[in-house]
Amino acid sequence: MHMQAARMHGYNEPLRIEEVPVPDPAADEILLKVAATGICRSDYQLQDGYFKGPFPVDFPYIPGHEVTGRVAGLGSGVPKTVGYTEGDMVVVNPSWGDGTCRQCREGNEHLCSGNGRWVGFGPPGGFAEYMAVQYRHVIPVSKEAAKKPELLAPMTDAGMTPYRGMRKLRDAGKLGPGRTVAVTGIGGLGSYAVQYAKLLGSGAVVVALARSDRKLEVAKDNGADHGINVRDKSTEAIQDELERHTGRRTLDAVLDCVGSEQSISMDFALLGPEGAVAAVGLMSDHVEHRQFPFVGMELSYLGSFWGNHLDLVEVLSLAERGLVKHNVTKVDLADINENLESLGHGDVVGRQVLVFA
Amino acid sequence: MHMQAARMHGYNEPLRIEEVPVPDPAADEILLKVAATGICRSDYQLQDGYFKGPFPVDFPYIPGHEVTGRVAGLGSGVPKTVGYTEGDMVVVNPSWGDGTCRQCREGNEHLCSGNGRWVGFGPPGGFAEYMAVQYRHVIPVSKEAAKKPELLAPMTDAGMTPYRGMRKLRDAGKLGPGRTVAVTGIGGLGSYAVQYAKLLGSGAVVVALARSDRKLEVAKDNGADHGINVRDKSTEAIQDELERHTGRRTLDAVLDCVGSEQSISMDFALLGPEGAVAAVGLMSDHVEHRQFPFVGMELSYLGSFWGNHLDLVEVLSLAERGLVKHNVTKVDLADINENLESLGHGDVVGRQVLVFA
Amino acid sequence: MHMQAARMHGYNEPLRIEEVPVPDPAADEILLKVAATGICRSDYQLQDGYFKGPFPVDFPYIPGHEVTGRVAGLGSGVPKTVGYTEGDMVVVNPSWGDGTCRQCREGNEHLCSGNGRWVGFGPPGGFAEYMAVQYRHVIPVSKEAAKKPELLAPMTDAGMTPYRGMRKLRDAGKLGPGRTVAVTGIGGLGSYAVQYAKLLGSGAVVVALARSDRKLEVAKDNGADHGINVRDKSTEAIQDELERHTGRRTLDAVLDCVGSEQSISMDFALLGPEGAVAAVGLMSDHVEHRQFPFVGMELSYLGSFWGNHLDLVEVLSLAERGLVKHNVTKVDLADINENLESLGHGDVVGRQVLVFA
Amino acid sequence: MHMQAARMHGYNEPLRIEEVPVPDPAADEILLKVAATGICRSDYQLQDGYFKGPFPVDFPYIPGHEVTGRVAGLGSGVPKTVGYTEGDMVVVNPSWGDGTCRQCREGNEHLCSGNGRWVGFGPPGGFAEYMAVQYRHVIPVSKEAAKKPELLAPMTDAGMTPYRGMRKLRDAGKLGPGRTVAVTGIGGLGSYAVQYAKLLGSGAVVVALARSDRKLEVAKDNGADHGINVRDKSTEAIQDELERHTGRRTLDAVLDCVGSEQSISMDFALLGPEGAVAAVGLMSDHVEHRQFPFVGMELSYLGSFWGNHLDLVEVLSLAERGLVKHNVTKVDLADINENLESLGHGDVVGRQVLVFA
Repeated sequence: MHMQAARMHGYNEPLRIEEVPVPDPAADEILLKVAATGICRSDYQLQDGYFKGPFPVDFPYIPGHEVTGRVAGLGSGVPKTVGYTEGDMVVVNPSWGDGTCRQCREGNEHLCSGNGRWVGFGPPGGFAEYMAVQYRHVIPVSKEAAKKPELLAPMTDAGMTPYRGMRKLRDAGKLGPGRTVAVTGIGGLGSYAVQYAKLLGSGAVVVALARSDRKLEVAKDNGADHGINVRDKSTEAIQDELERHTGRRTLDAVLDCVGSEQSISMDFALLGPEGAVAAVGLMSDHVEHRQFPFVGMELSYLGSFWGNHLDLVEVLSLAERGLVKHNVTKVDLADINENLESLGHGDVVGRQVLVFA
Repeated sequence: MHMQAARMHGYNEPLRIEEVPVPDPAADEILLKVAATGICRSDYQLQDGYFKGPFPVDFPYIPGHEVTGRVAGLGSGVPKTVGYTEGDMVVVNPSWGDGTCRQCREGNEHLCSGNGRWVGFGPPGGFAEYMAVQYRHVIPVSKEAAKKPELLAPMTDAGMTPYRGMRKLRDAGKLGPGRTVAVTGIGGLGSYAVQYAKLLGSGAVVVALARSDRKLEVAKDNGADHGINVRDKSTEAIQDELERHTGRRTLDAVLDCVGSEQSISMDFALLGPEGAVAAVGLMSDHVEHRQFPFVGMELSYLGSFWGNHLDLVEVLSLAERGLVKHNVTKVDLADINENLESLGHGDVVGRQVLVFA
Repeated sequence: MHMQAARMHGYNEPLRIEEVPVPDPAADEILLKVAATGICRSDYQLQDGYFKGPFPVDFPYIPGHEVTGRVAGLGSGVPKTVGYTEGDMVVVNPSWGDGTCRQCREGNEHLCSGNGRWVGFGPPGGFAEYMAVQYRHVIPVSKEAAKKPELLAPMTDAGMTPYRGMRKLRDAGKLGPGRTVAVTGIGGLGSYAVQYAKLLGSGAVVVALARSDRKLEVAKDNGADHGINVRDKSTEAIQDELERHTGRRTLDAVLDCVGSEQSISMDFALLGPEGAVAAVGLMSDHVEHRQFPFVGMELSYLGSFWGNHLDLVEVLSLAERGLVKHNVTKVDLADINENLESLGHGDVVGRQVLVFA
Repeated sequence: MHMQAARMHGYNEPLRIEEVPVPDPAADEILLKVAATGICRSDYQLQDGYFKGPFPVDFPYIPGHEVTGRVAGLGSGVPKTVGYTEGDMVVVNPSWGDGTCRQCREGNEHLCSGNGRWVGFGPPGGFAEYMAVQYRHVIPVSKEAAKKPELLAPMTDAGMTPYRGMRKLRDAGKLGPGRTVAVTGIGGLGSYAVQYAKLLGSGAVVVALARSDRKLEVAKDNGADHGINVRDKSTEAIQDELERHTGRRTLDAVLDCVGSEQSISMDFALLGPEGAVAAVGLMSDHVEHRQFPFVGMELSYLGSFWGNHLDLVEVLSLAERGLVKHNVTKVDLADINENLESLGHGDVVGRQVLVFA
């Protein structure tokens, strides 16, 4: 049996759409008929070699890590108690730890320090009509939610990554009434991030920081209280606007969905005492801090990576209850390369999702 | 009434030892006959202008922020219930918030974002025979502890600063059995830091990282399980030694008492997944992070500044119970300038403390 | 100068409305012209002797701990920098610690273990036209908010107490998407509590548990997702309803605003693994736990008392932004006794607030 | 192949030592040649029906949940990468979750709310020469540690249970310099508990509370700073002794290893503001709280059950580094019934461990 797939044959060259064999599920795997797969900025970065060191892949390789699909086959060892039957819609938790290291034992398989694998960055992903996945890494969804798989697929990265980052800010005690939290970068992740800022903020004021008015509009549609276009503005000019909106010149928390030198510098320049930046973006290789204010004001900088199984269960629970607003454009496998190109240029608003017939 | 004092008359020039009037305590202040004042690397940095921006001072100015003294007079408004009488030995909590901002209301007056003041960096300090201080910023000590004021004075900064930093690592869940915590830099702060690593580490293995064998000896005398001389060593060479000592090539937590670009880079290069660096040192203006491992391994970077009233109460409690080992050299006011000079060169082991007759 | 005041002359007898002298503010006090004072179930309990042990009072005594008023005079020692002028509306933080114990140094003056005082349970309270209060225990409000002091007064207890309790549940990690949190008892506190469950719940489902349909209506008007009338129902019957509403038979968290033996037993019978009950209610002297499920499911029981200065700042910030719905009935000083009586019988919905001309 | 085993044939009757078949390991199981199995008060409680409700067992049944043994066979599906070979000494993590519920996904399989199993309370345990266990529930130990399996076996319950309880007190911020932590009950668990109080206490003073001087001696040998014999003493008398030892009349934290009505009442009577009791003991069915001090002082009561995989890894790490002192008596399978009897009477000091030739 054969299927269509978009495969990498090398770094810095377009994916090729090819006819390849449908994978054969191992004993503990499920075969999925892929319904929708999100296209992410990190797919662009995979292609341009950013992850060459940490995540080398064997060519030809099928990327795609934001996957939803229907059960199309069950390996012989999948326990009956799990209760899947053909046709059930499930969402794929993309991080597959080996289960033995401290991180796995804590439930953070996405940080596995042993033999962790990340679908779409090692095991073949969802830019294809079929995919195999261990049964314990899928999460079933309601019949209602199953009707729009294109809204589920992006929850596995664009929707989950900023959730975990915002959760870290909340758990670090940085959100609450009278606090101001900003989201930097309103692309695929940021347009979800502002929503989590409202949901998890306990009444904090939410400010979106972006470099285009169009993106700020999306942020406000998604619940941001205020938006500031930071393009070409000095710290002081941004603080003036911030004060006009919130009555204060400083922020208590930032979720940075960009990860560039400029964005991280701006974030820290805007923080007040005990402020924190959680970073999920990966635009640059290096970022810098000014040491005295960092120490003297007891700032924090927190890396937050993707999410674990429970993070995905939680964002799906929000989505199924209608508490998450999506901004999704459906695209065809045939157009995969031009969509990746646009992500590289940073001019995508919301999320593009491959859908399969 | 007059007293001897060492005063700054400008940046980058020696202190002058001069005869000046004894301060007159305000209604809510206590006059202290200074018994001992620690000399800190930040006194050197005050002199060379590092703090010119955040902490401008009026010349002539008396530095000295690690102060212990005996009550020599009480302002008219000091409540009787406080119960001080002349001759009582007290330790000075050096950070004086205005009591109205969020940080003050949390008990973190040292982070006061309103009108906070830090003795020795604004209000006149303890490089003098007498000093005035608000009654609510002093902490009484036992008669036994009062016999060696030179051991108490450094607790207010060298002894308290790494305590707070280590506490942050503990509270962030980074210490415990099976974990490895390192202390970078074994000077005035670091020689206390390794002790807190043992006391607060819940059984974590403690490694000292320094650039001289003499300092590593101090660290081991103070309880470090292992020491690594990192001078001129590659990350890999350090990891080889680490593995020989601990069986692992990575660290879970670092308390950095240096704050230079090199030390912070080294710290992060040695961290494993979910690792954290708490920084109390201020050697450099800027430090850098590599963004992908920071995000991908969910590392954290935590600024920790000095300490609050309860931190000081806690380290004094440890000291009074004999759980803290000191490494103090008594010096005379007359020798203040050469001692500051040595601190600038980084070749001081332990703490130098001014003592007054 | 004289004023009207309602005073206790003994336990278990009505308050007497009397003409008494206006208090003279001490050097560090502000004299307030009381604008509004909430009437609380604990005022009823003060009268019936529940607090005789912990909070003995000298008769004749003016109760009233939920106070808002306008500045009518300033003691000679109130710092100019504080910036109050006559006529400014302020809210009174009711818990006055002595500033020296651990709890005070943490910002929890309401738990002061030294010489703490609680207005209306020791110092004379706001069932009178004037009241004196230390300047550092008042919080200024906006001109807009000052128009309705009857909405501000209850924030100091009915509005703050469940906020702190809900914050404890959030900080203990018990709230979030996919979780269910219940509020037990929908009286003065509970009708605020359901709102905080939504604001702080990060998307948790909110269930109100009460013994009257009228109260459940209030809960739903205030944002509860579901209400269950628990009067005369078995645990199993409650669980059946719970399952119908939420799909699950257990709760993750309960804020108990009752504090009776029955309510606490019910709470624990409904908890799932790792569930927590935070208790703010004080109906009974004793409550009981079944030990095996408590230990075996790692349940927690958390006492939460009133609130600290920052809790009050935070709930006022929510109220000023219009994020809190009030349910207040204005009453006259003349009717104080019959209002206290109704609270004793437990048939008050929302909050009764004394207003002064 | 046959083995000796001690089996229950009903509640409230002695175990019978019988010849039974050696279990056949399933595909993902390891067959262990049991080396040592601890005897626990909960084995006595299993026999007397305390757990009849939560953990029903099928007779004849082999109890025993504290098990260490050597690999004697591997199921066909045990991954080679796991790297076990026959003769390796491993320790059995006793709680086996189904891996799908929230608790399992958090790494708390011992709280599994789905289909969790606890060896010795459902699956056959270690009161037998052989036992089968899923490969992912065993933890390898060093060759050195393997020499004394009787010291390893009790770590799986007596050694792990108080560790988790003490960790909860630490993580709740109740331990540290200047704090006092007590351990109530110095039996199998309590003699480990005082050691964890020192290791995790960050310098807290450790007090043992027990009803026999012999047990207090054990506590002091294991590191307790002070011991109080509480038998027949009033709260005030206990507080007098406490003050004599520590200078204070209250405690900040208690780990209760008894779980009786009297012990829990005593614990709460001794707590100061913000104090906490963590309970691991299960002596009584019900315990009681006085509601006003509980709420008014913001006390907490925390259930702590056994431990998870990482807790066991952590206590084994402490034990392998020689940081844990044991108090173990080796006993023979033939004497199992009289040993259980003694546990029921509460007159066992330290831990009795079955050893097999």
